[in-house]
Amino acid sequence: MSVSSYRSGIPDHGRVPKYYTVKSLILDEIRQLGVGALLPPERDLAARFRVARSTVRQAISELVIEGRLAAQRGRGTFVARPKLIHPLSLASYTESLRAMGYEPSRTVVAVEEARADDELAAALEIEPGAPVIRLERVLLADGDPLGLEITELPAERYPTLLDVLDPSGSLYRCMQDELGVVWAEATERIETALASPREALLLQTNPALPMLLMQRISRDPSGTPIERVRSLYRGDRIGFETRLVTGR
Amino acid sequence: MSVSSYRSGIPDHGRVPKYYTVKSLILDEIRQLGVGALLPPERDLAARFRVARSTVRQAISELVIEGRLAAQRGRGTFVARPKLIHPLSLASYTESLRAMGYEPSRTVVAVEEARADDELAAALEIEPGAPVIRLERVLLADGDPLGLEITELPAERYPTLLDVLDPSGSLYRCMQDELGVVWAEATERIETALASPREALLLQTNPALPMLLMQRISRDPSGTPIERVRSLYRGDRIGFETRLVTGR
Repeated sequence: MSVSSYRSGIPDHGRVPKYYTVKSLILDEIRQLGVGALLPPERDLAARFRVARSTVRQAISELVIEGRLAAQRGRGTFVARPKLIHPLSLASYTESLRAMGYEPSRTVVAVEEARADDELAAALEIEPGAPVIRLERVLLADGDPLGLEITELPAERYPTLLDVLDPSGSLYRCMQDELGVVWAEATERIETALASPREALLLQTNPALPMLLMQRISRDPSGTPIERVRSLYRGDRIGFETRLVTGR
Repeated sequence: MSVSSYRSGIPDHGRVPKYYTVKSLILDEIRQLGVGALLPPERDLAARFRVARSTVRQAISELVIEGRLAAQRGRGTFVARPKLIHPLSLASYTESLRAMGYEPSRTVVAVEEARADDELAAALEIEPGAPVIRLERVLLADGDPLGLEITELPAERYPTLLDVLDPSGSLYRCMQDELGVVWAEATERIETALASPREALLLQTNPALPMLLMQRISRDPSGTPIERVRSLYRGDRIGFETRLVTGR
């Protein structure tokens, strides 16, 4: 049995990139400063660690991507709050966030009728070209954008939905209470993605930031598709948690 | 109700960054070429789209990060295979990959005894400083690195594990068959992360690539922790899928 020991962060050939050393030093600083504290300016850190400002900038940029720091234009760089960990479940966003002590809200970007393309039609089990209701909303937690959610529903299955829906409220709650729709199960796919320039703008972030892309198809107890949801979450602000049991 | 329509990829102010237009054009090209085809050289694409080579390079770089293209040093840029979609489950990596038609393998990076720090001790419900077995393995699919998996187990709970384990094989199968350990449930946390330089080297990728970080604690039927697993997956090569049901 081949037994070998590696030290974290150190490549096989033994050289550690300078920015990575600086990143570890800034992480120590972050732990001492605590959430909400202002990080010292780049030039001070560069002088203290005896490296170029560009090296400090690379380290800070990775820590921003990882959600440990948050840059606020004109105000400096701050120690960020811990990532929000959201359960992977059919519970509504509103209820999940409140349970974690955050105040959820939504900004409505679009509410429109559209026609299903072949892919959407297959997902919703409707005819290509059939009408769909399309909701696009920014999800916020305590006022900060967390994700962008595009929900598409078969318009002919829920003809009164737009009459009863407050698009800034919970779609799940409205469909359950007003239309009697029951969410029985969903398939959810999770991967990394990059934001498009438009998505980055809506999420108040930059397109280079890694995003979590979640794609869901929900079904009612008869197995009929209710919705297709494509959600793009800021990877620096949120993670997901699930419980796995044997046989699943 | 505010109703407005947005076109995909187009910021509110109406300007589309040039690289993003080029990215869409290359995506069309990718669809026509098909998996495994060689992308035309940067300079040809720059001439065809009448943009700077640096603009083409930025578009290609995003498509590589998203797993649509794969760069092979000295050979050019190719249309990549679709992402592998892995079920989020307690099934072993070996079995899941075979079920998807891939040949799974593992490269052993480290097999060692270590001491639990406070965090690991709390996760495994053992005393801080107690011995742990630490396995570090690169997971491959058809010979390509897909993820880096670090498994830590309480040594005193499984004193004969290192005698019976082939570290390049399935840990789950070995512990089930040889030690009678039963996986009953696990908590799994999913988020984005950046690879450290060392991790990027082991995964044959670059540190800027978004990774999926999965952190799992598995338990036996009595609720006793079996293992803590930290897996870092290449976001350009793999995604995960789960089935959600009401009441979870």
